[in-house]
Amino acid sequence: MDRDELKAILAALQRGERELDEVLGLLDRMPYHDLGNACLDTHRGLRSGLGEVVFALDKETADLEVIIAALAESGENVLVTRLDAEKAAVLRPKFPDFEYHETGRYLVRLARPREDRGRGEVLIVTAGTADLGVAYEAEITLRVMGQKVSLLADVGVAGIHRLLVHLERLRAAEVLIVIAGMEGALPSVVAGLVDRPVIAVPTSTGYGTAFGGVTALLGMLNSCAAGIGVVNIDNGFGAACLAGQINRTRE
Amino acid sequence: MDRDELKAILAALQRGERELDEVLGLLDRMPYHDLGNACLDTHRGLRSGLGEVVFALDKETADLEVIIAALAESGENVLVTRLDAEKAAVLRPKFPDFEYHETGRYLVRLARPREDRGRGEVLIVTAGTADLGVAYEAEITLRVMGQKVSLLADVGVAGIHRLLVHLERLRAAEVLIVIAGMEGALPSVVAGLVDRPVIAVPTSTGYGTAFGGVTALLGMLNSCAAGIGVVNIDNGFGAACLAGQINRTRE
Amino acid sequence: MDRDELKAILAALQRGERELDEVLGLLDRMPYHDLGNACLDTHRGLRSGLGEVVFALDKETADLEVIIAALAESGENVLVTRLDAEKAAVLRPKFPDFEYHETGRYLVRLARPREDRGRGEVLIVTAGTADLGVAYEAEITLRVMGQKVSLLADVGVAGIHRLLVHLERLRAAEVLIVIAGMEGALPSVVAGLVDRPVIAVPTSTGYGTAFGGVTALLGMLNSCAAGIGVVNIDNGFGAACLAGQINRTRE
Amino acid sequence: MDRDELKAILAALQRGERELDEVLGLLDRMPYHDLGNACLDTHRGLRSGLGEVVFALDKETADLEVIIAALAESGENVLVTRLDAEKAAVLRPKFPDFEYHETGRYLVRLARPREDRGRGEVLIVTAGTADLGVAYEAEITLRVMGQKVSLLADVGVAGIHRLLVHLERLRAAEVLIVIAGMEGALPSVVAGLVDRPVIAVPTSTGYGTAFGGVTALLGMLNSCAAGIGVVNIDNGFGAACLAGQINRTRE
Amino acid sequence: MDRDELKAILAALQRGERELDEVLGLLDRMPYHDLGNACLDTHRGLRSGLGEVVFALDKETADLEVIIAALAESGENVLVTRLDAEKAAVLRPKFPDFEYHETGRYLVRLARPREDRGRGEVLIVTAGTADLGVAYEAEITLRVMGQKVSLLADVGVAGIHRLLVHLERLRAAEVLIVIAGMEGALPSVVAGLVDRPVIAVPTSTGYGTAFGGVTALLGMLNSCAAGIGVVNIDNGFGAACLAGQINRTRE
Amino acid sequence: MDRDELKAILAALQRGERELDEVLGLLDRMPYHDLGNACLDTHRGLRSGLGEVVFALDKETADLEVIIAALAESGENVLVTRLDAEKAAVLRPKFPDFEYHETGRYLVRLARPREDRGRGEVLIVTAGTADLGVAYEAEITLRVMGQKVSLLADVGVAGIHRLLVHLERLRAAEVLIVIAGMEGALPSVVAGLVDRPVIAVPTSTGYGTAFGGVTALLGMLNSCAAGIGVVNIDNGFGAACLAGQINRTRE
Amino acid sequence: MDRDELKAILAALQRGERELDEVLGLLDRMPYHDLGNACLDTHRGLRSGLGEVVFALDKETADLEVIIAALAESGENVLVTRLDAEKAAVLRPKFPDFEYHETGRYLVRLARPREDRGRGEVLIVTAGTADLGVAYEAEITLRVMGQKVSLLADVGVAGIHRLLVHLERLRAAEVLIVIAGMEGALPSVVAGLVDRPVIAVPTSTGYGTAFGGVTALLGMLNSCAAGIGVVNIDNGFGAACLAGQINRTRE
Amino acid sequence: MDRDELKAILAALQRGERELDEVLGLLDRMPYHDLGNACLDTHRGLRSGLGEVVFALDKETADLEVIIAALAESGENVLVTRLDAEKAAVLRPKFPDFEYHETGRYLVRLARPREDRGRGEVLIVTAGTADLGVAYEAEITLRVMGQKVSLLADVGVAGIHRLLVHLERLRAAEVLIVIAGMEGALPSVVAGLVDRPVIAVPTSTGYGTAFGGVTALLGMLNSCAAGIGVVNIDNGFGAACLAGQINRTRE
Repeated sequence: MDRDELKAILAALQRGERELDEVLGLLDRMPYHDLGNACLDTHRGLRSGLGEVVFALDKETADLEVIIAALAESGENVLVTRLDAEKAAVLRPKFPDFEYHETGRYLVRLARPREDRGRGEVLIVTAGTADLGVAYEAEITLRVMGQKVSLLADVGVAGIHRLLVHLERLRAAEVLIVIAGMEGALPSVVAGLVDRPVIAVPTSTGYGTAFGGVTALLGMLNSCAAGIGVVNIDNGFGAACLAGQINRTRE
Repeated sequence: MDRDELKAILAALQRGERELDEVLGLLDRMPYHDLGNACLDTHRGLRSGLGEVVFALDKETADLEVIIAALAESGENVLVTRLDAEKAAVLRPKFPDFEYHETGRYLVRLARPREDRGRGEVLIVTAGTADLGVAYEAEITLRVMGQKVSLLADVGVAGIHRLLVHLERLRAAEVLIVIAGMEGALPSVVAGLVDRPVIAVPTSTGYGTAFGGVTALLGMLNSCAAGIGVVNIDNGFGAACLAGQINRTRE
Repeated sequence: MDRDELKAILAALQRGERELDEVLGLLDRMPYHDLGNACLDTHRGLRSGLGEVVFALDKETADLEVIIAALAESGENVLVTRLDAEKAAVLRPKFPDFEYHETGRYLVRLARPREDRGRGEVLIVTAGTADLGVAYEAEITLRVMGQKVSLLADVGVAGIHRLLVHLERLRAAEVLIVIAGMEGALPSVVAGLVDRPVIAVPTSTGYGTAFGGVTALLGMLNSCAAGIGVVNIDNGFGAACLAGQINRTRE
Repeated sequence: MDRDELKAILAALQRGERELDEVLGLLDRMPYHDLGNACLDTHRGLRSGLGEVVFALDKETADLEVIIAALAESGENVLVTRLDAEKAAVLRPKFPDFEYHETGRYLVRLARPREDRGRGEVLIVTAGTADLGVAYEAEITLRVMGQKVSLLADVGVAGIHRLLVHLERLRAAEVLIVIAGMEGALPSVVAGLVDRPVIAVPTSTGYGTAFGGVTALLGMLNSCAAGIGVVNIDNGFGAACLAGQINRTRE
Repeated sequence: MDRDELKAILAALQRGERELDEVLGLLDRMPYHDLGNACLDTHRGLRSGLGEVVFALDKETADLEVIIAALAESGENVLVTRLDAEKAAVLRPKFPDFEYHETGRYLVRLARPREDRGRGEVLIVTAGTADLGVAYEAEITLRVMGQKVSLLADVGVAGIHRLLVHLERLRAAEVLIVIAGMEGALPSVVAGLVDRPVIAVPTSTGYGTAFGGVTALLGMLNSCAAGIGVVNIDNGFGAACLAGQINRTRE
Repeated sequence: MDRDELKAILAALQRGERELDEVLGLLDRMPYHDLGNACLDTHRGLRSGLGEVVFALDKETADLEVIIAALAESGENVLVTRLDAEKAAVLRPKFPDFEYHETGRYLVRLARPREDRGRGEVLIVTAGTADLGVAYEAEITLRVMGQKVSLLADVGVAGIHRLLVHLERLRAAEVLIVIAGMEGALPSVVAGLVDRPVIAVPTSTGYGTAFGGVTALLGMLNSCAAGIGVVNIDNGFGAACLAGQINRTRE
Repeated sequence: MDRDELKAILAALQRGERELDEVLGLLDRMPYHDLGNACLDTHRGLRSGLGEVVFALDKETADLEVIIAALAESGENVLVTRLDAEKAAVLRPKFPDFEYHETGRYLVRLARPREDRGRGEVLIVTAGTADLGVAYEAEITLRVMGQKVSLLADVGVAGIHRLLVHLERLRAAEVLIVIAGMEGALPSVVAGLVDRPVIAVPTSTGYGTAFGGVTALLGMLNSCAAGIGVVNIDNGFGAACLAGQINRTRE
Repeated sequence: MDRDELKAILAALQRGERELDEVLGLLDRMPYHDLGNACLDTHRGLRSGLGEVVFALDKETADLEVIIAALAESGENVLVTRLDAEKAAVLRPKFPDFEYHETGRYLVRLARPREDRGRGEVLIVTAGTADLGVAYEAEITLRVMGQKVSLLADVGVAGIHRLLVHLERLRAAEVLIVIAGMEGALPSVVAGLVDRPVIAVPTSTGYGTAFGGVTALLGMLNSCAAGIGVVNIDNGFGAACLAGQINRTRE
């Protein structure tokens, strides 16, 4: 309910076309209309064109089945992230029109082709092959958001010429998501080569003092290249949401 | 030097209009032309319209004087960040056309008014008054970049209605920089209210287990609101660079 | 044994009605009577009306069986917390009058309905569905203590209007237990809305830099809303004990 | 504005006694009236009877002077916490009716004696003399809130009989604030002796692996005595706010 | 080989009763005789009367079988610590004269009764039942060293009177090993009650911010009771070695 | 008051030689007599022959003056530890019969020569010259306790032969205190060479990843030589108390 | 392509012997020729004589099979590191000319005997038997690089004489790799005995505060013996690469 | 004393030319002769050609004066590292033939030109100007060791072409010392470009989550380029010692 609708309702009350208690009841719920559309649409991502998203980590399989079933009814695109293979084995047979991606750990139904909503292309860059799972999560999230996305894998800084070959492609992107584990140096180098926003995603790839991605995260936060935005470890979904927000043409 | 220029040079060599050694010399420098324009313009921020920027932390006063003097000659906008009061006391008298901001810890010369380069307005939001220094650093950086910027201070989550009053203004911004210390919860709440990119800046405000900003940083990285990009603690400059990249209309 | 009983015993000695050695024997045990009632009732919670409680974590199944059997004899309420499914599978058949709650990980026998011992209602609030297990542990603990308790789930700060809908209910509670993982911002927002004690429980919900609940804990300790008491990660039991102490009418 | 006032306004609109635009304007501000009374009273502590409180840490002396002067005009009690000696030296001469406490680091004006608002007495217990500064901050906060408070100092666990002497006094308190640095074991022992709420305050007293209070904090969070609420390191103010909330008789 | 033996060998050389090369060969190995008895007896504990000890953690079962078999030939006492149930299931049938203790995770053969080598009794005190495994490791180690040892379990600080009952026994011990997890406060309280050496062992008992024993360790290192020696988390063996060194009468 | 005294008092009550209320009054104070002698002698170190000790860290100079003056009246040995040069400059002129040691940061009056109370000699070993301050604190503490003590400095593991030269002296000691910063490896090596108790003291010597002594502490806790007791960083006093407890002949 | 080749190509263009587009095409690829030889040989180790190396951690078995098959075709030496037993069970049957080492967790084909490429011998020293897996990884890496390597195991600092026996051998090595877990003191002692480069490898051997190798790592970084280079925890491969670089005779 | 000398001594004993006790005395000291020559030459660096080095951190000025004076007598090169400006102000006038370097924080006397002792050149590379102090410490250390050294400053990864310009020079070096703060990515990139040993030095340059160099250190330990040896934060001296060991031609 926006201000115009509200004005109409009050005018109706003024004109005696609506009852006082009826209007009071509408106003009781008003703040939530002002802020969004009730609990079902509070997920900010939805307003960005994401469709329905379920974060499966820490949720039990039985609960997931109920939630996915409810969302599936809508006919909208539905994306379930962080769904491990064990839970997926139970859920897949129950949702035959969904597709499961093992490395990306997501279950998705791209029910309706979406119009392209972005200004340009989001380019996802990974340092190594072990970072691909996170890249796939980001990719599907952007697809569900109706954005153009492409992927450039395994161009880590130890062999810098592998990256330099793709300079033109890096510079053509509207937004870049750069994914790296271990020392997490790739976003620094990429951000030094382009003049577009870079979203850095640390991954848990590595061992010992990689500390499950903390080292990569710290490296990205302390980049000598200014203007990099960092998200949580392995958070491909969050990086894609931010990239989508940036790339999305405003209504 | 792009491919067309290169083709022309080689053609000139072929036609005998250029000497072999002359061409060899041009090719020697080529990779750097491909990548940017020598060491002087390597600063990626520069290409984004930042003018000249000096990061004063860890630099000695004497060195700073030399660097600022060199940059001042250009007649361009010059920004010196993280300049503490002690160093500023020495440098200010030597650069009379510069202005020093104590809380923002920057020295600046806005030599030339810059055309507005952004799509919309960047809104800087702070949780408390103690976060203002970081906000001022972000603000001047965006000013130097030629972007529209405004500031909304002291709207932390402990009194949520202080923030809700400004809902319309929050939603009107093209990009938001949200700055908070202590538990760093403000970006989560703001991101839940808008559908534009949110850049979160943790600050070192607090004591005890605030751990100099680490707690605020962790809170921002783990936000339940998707799509927030985080920068280093107190890094107002970096947040502004990213916001500027996002907001900047592409040439 | 209180001071009056002691006086009576000494007077009996004085009057020759008790033997010297008998009195000496009573005095030998006195300090423990002064401090509580022997080892069996040292658990402070018991004196608060908790009945018998067993913390099952780190205890072997065989030991648990012996302890529960002993407590079950009393006919009192018995609560076994942190009992994982594997141990529960062994123990449940042996205690048919007990009920096991899988998400709350507790085994309980509410043998006798307890009179209501609280001043008002304890309201348990959770940020997400993944925090429900901890909420259930707190709920059963308060039930066993004979207190009124209700639950408000999934009202995290990313969609702040979901919380604001319940403002009246939040303000009506005598004590609030607020449970949240990830950035743990919910207690800050709730404490800003009410003027009753808030007990904050960080949960291990989240991934990467959530660090198993440490980030939520730090957020809560650094809340910009004053007067929040924090307990250990996932410690629903401890939060309930404290809430019960606060809410309990004093004898 | 409560629901009855709203009903009256809408009825007036219905009856034609108020203009449509006037009513719209009132509704625009409604949510904030629902939540409190504008920015000036957002401080939740205020509603708890705290009077005016200023947190001086991280604020500049000039700003503090302005804020205190504004608050002093009200004639209310005013409390400035975390004011170091250097800032106090500047501010004290300007506020002659204020008193400064060096160890407690606070500046206070108890303008009006406050009625006793608590159910019983809040007892503040410290492990050592080095914890007194934090105890004084808690004490003055409770005084400003109009609560009965007393102090029991230097009864740390290394000499347990020092504590046991005061058993009766410990048990008589309505709420206990227990303050300790180093290993922070005192709250565990005290909570084992009483059946009232215990608020534990870790202090930065100690050296080496005391880690500025982190060790004491961890000890308190992991207490084997259930039902202790913990606040940030050295946070005497926060502990007092919580104790005040608990002890306060409800209107 | 001690100095007397060496003198005898050289005298034999002097008298022509030993060959030069034979003596040279003996001297080649001498440094090890000077420092101990070759690699097989380098374990310092051995010289303290421990017999043969094998630390099974991180060793493969096959390797353990070879080592134990070699030691078993000697007829001496043999102790294998940190042997988990899985490895023990393989090894037990092969060493029928050994006994395995599941909670203490050790395999032992007490081949020969050892004379009592201590000045007094070593008292092992635990805070809870979950600490018993570590206590059993310490107990068997002291038994193998030929020392008198007794155990006092489940006397944690939450019910301080449980501990005070045993004051006389605590004070009678020559050395005390105090084992506790969670907040690790017990050693502080015990050390305040006795005037004998206290060896504190933190255990990994607990959850959340217990951090696998780190909190207990920090508590013990920062004890307000002076003169406590701390060992690694769960290191019952190391505590027993130190207690044995202290209690052992010197030859 | 021991059991015999108690029996006599009760018998007197029985015989009518004491009043009931008088006996009740005596019993009220009994627990504390059982546990020690009031607050003044709670310091466990005192009972170990330490005389009077004041820990000056975190105490204000004025308070220290009062405490030292009170203790000085007794004519006993008085030791003030962790007294920095600034405070010492104020206090020294007021206590002319006290001696201040700058590197050891202590103020001491050895009023009365003490008989030797130890079984043997305590040997203090340091890895480097920067560890001497901690060594001096340990040394004076042992002197005040009336124990024989000697010092072996600068024998760190980087030049292992410097240590081996002193093998005989190391093995002659009854107890060893081994002090080291940086990697803290010296206690491991020393403990491998002797069969007496080793107390390891990590120091804050070092830079970068020495982390103010944490690295040395961790090294000592994980020593591959069994049976080392560790104290807090720079805690020379605590190490000496423990060494004194071990070395002290029992009454 | 070096500068001489480039000059020749341009001269041919000048002389009309090459086409303009052909030369442009060569120049397009030039930067990568300058930097190495395309993506396939970016692995710097390869240029050092390592042959083909695959890091199997975090790679799926199916992917590994494809990669190994591709490398196996070359006939070169192939080394697969960090291959756990489960993956190895699948892969071994498919590569019959490869050998799997369980403790060293590597799969290798030493197809061609390599000429000795080193100046001297690389000596690998381990503190304990639990460090052997890491030693084997280092050993095979050096073998594949064509270097002389030998192994000295179980000479930890707790029994220093075990190490001193081998002084001559230690001093004869050209480079030393010293591997240790727990307190990680061995590199300090070894570096004090030799005057050749020492590469220190911390291992995850240990428990409790060993923190999975972090303690050993910190010990090595803070060694009092100057000139030790440290690698990541358990990184035998990296240590061998560095040792190989050092020992390798330059072409 | 080597084996031949020992044989001669024993033969003399056999022949009656030496007394038994005399021989015993010689054997007592033997191990230390085997290991080196007394405490004065234990510093391993000395044997590497370093001359005399004093580490001034944590040493008092008076002590430093004594030590430097003693060393200065020798006429050898003398290097004092980590000497802050305050101490230097006192010491410089007393040693007029020494030179002090403020940024490098060292005091040096290069008494005698040293012959070149290296195989090639050691190249020191820094990421930024703030890393120069550490570079100067490394440079002077190598000079004192008689090695060829050169410096390449300010070529951090944010502007990768700045580094690529110097590819030839990077590849010509025999050993490289790469110094970087912030995210510490430079060694990864450099190591990917050369095939010589790279020694990485993290510096404390940066703020917030740079954590005083810990982030740079972690980045270097987790480099995706194999074969980098890392030293402690800001440890230019240690890096130079290791580089010197590597580059030094063996006698």
